[in-house]
Amino acid sequence: MGVMMRENRSGTTRPPDCLGVGGPRSEGTRRTILDAARGLFAARGYEQTTIRAVAAEADIDASLVMRYFGSKADLFAAAATIDLNAPDLASVPPRRRGEALVRHFMASWDRDPSEDMLVFLLRTAVTNDAVAEQMQATFNRMIVGPLTQLGYTDPERRAALIGSQLMGVALCRHILRLEPLAALSNDEVVAGVAPTIQRYLTAPTPALAQPA
Amino acid sequence: MGVMMRENRSGTTRPPDCLGVGGPRSEGTRRTILDAARGLFAARGYEQTTIRAVAAEADIDASLVMRYFGSKADLFAAAATIDLNAPDLASVPPRRRGEALVRHFMASWDRDPSEDMLVFLLRTAVTNDAVAEQMQATFNRMIVGPLTQLGYTDPERRAALIGSQLMGVALCRHILRLEPLAALSNDEVVAGVAPTIQRYLTAPTPALAQPA
Repeated sequence: MGVMMRENRSGTTRPPDCLGVGGPRSEGTRRTILDAARGLFAARGYEQTTIRAVAAEADIDASLVMRYFGSKADLFAAAATIDLNAPDLASVPPRRRGEALVRHFMASWDRDPSEDMLVFLLRTAVTNDAVAEQMQATFNRMIVGPLTQLGYTDPERRAALIGSQLMGVALCRHILRLEPLAALSNDEVVAGVAPTIQRYLTAPTPALAQPA
Repeated sequence: MGVMMRENRSGTTRPPDCLGVGGPRSEGTRRTILDAARGLFAARGYEQTTIRAVAAEADIDASLVMRYFGSKADLFAAAATIDLNAPDLASVPPRRRGEALVRHFMASWDRDPSEDMLVFLLRTAVTNDAVAEQMQATFNRMIVGPLTQLGYTDPERRAALIGSQLMGVALCRHILRLEPLAALSNDEVVAGVAPTIQRYLTAPTPALAQPA
């Protein structure tokens, strides 16, 4: 989210270095620090990762990491901030929205940085409540929000079921790399999964809530 | 799997201590070591976990850990061995098999040790190929095998889609604890998810493979 937009609101074309709180900063340095932090948090977990180690990995001074992020907790929060656009379902015919949701998330995961982000999030979320909360917030913004705006009944339960299927695909395909799922084309995954998502969108709520 | 059955094949009712390779062993000690190992592997990852640390956590001597398991790699393999029964689908009417699969896995995860096991597996599988391979083998045994025996067409693809939905439920409900999924009753989850699994079992293969 806001990460990319927090500097240079004047609209002028400044050089990448500009004044932030506490001294000059650059978006490039910020990203270098965040990349290093994600790698270390994912490999070692939150507790075992130090500002000093992140600075060494990013090849900069530890005081600079502090100037950019203030604390290890804030650095972690920034590293765990997910920069994905919510899907635009309003412009999609209702009967195609299941497919649109699957395609939106698969396209997001296909980009390399997002795959790293998925690994980072799942590695850390398992033991870190802050990351789990961050994922809940992202999930609410990406799925519950759009369904609520479009007037779906019981959007939380529909979104939870949709999220379980999409996260399962991400986990099995990109992280565990289970076959044959990892080898399928995106179109094949969409063909298999889109009707599931469509049903979670459209089935009457009682059918999603009561034992068969 | 074999874990529980590797000793005392004579069928006699021996006391828990019995002779294995390299000296006396007990199932209780073995389990204590495995529990300690899962906790440490999950918290620190494979590389950062030592036999010495596992022994300290289990409150026994490191040489005893070596006598039971031989090496860190073998200890890890034993810790990652999943002790679940494959679902018995042959005795279930075909139209109820989706529901039976969901109930089988949900019941397995509900037991406390299995929840710890899930956390351990997902924490370590993300960075450890041996665990990912173990999960692939388990997945083949638990889902692909039964579908193949029952004569389903393209059992690998059906199983992959089924696995993605079931693993997604496990991840969101037991590990990330995303709401509202974590708060739903088992029956509510079954009501929502069983028709998905049923469709992955019964939809004609072209409908699972070709873009809509």
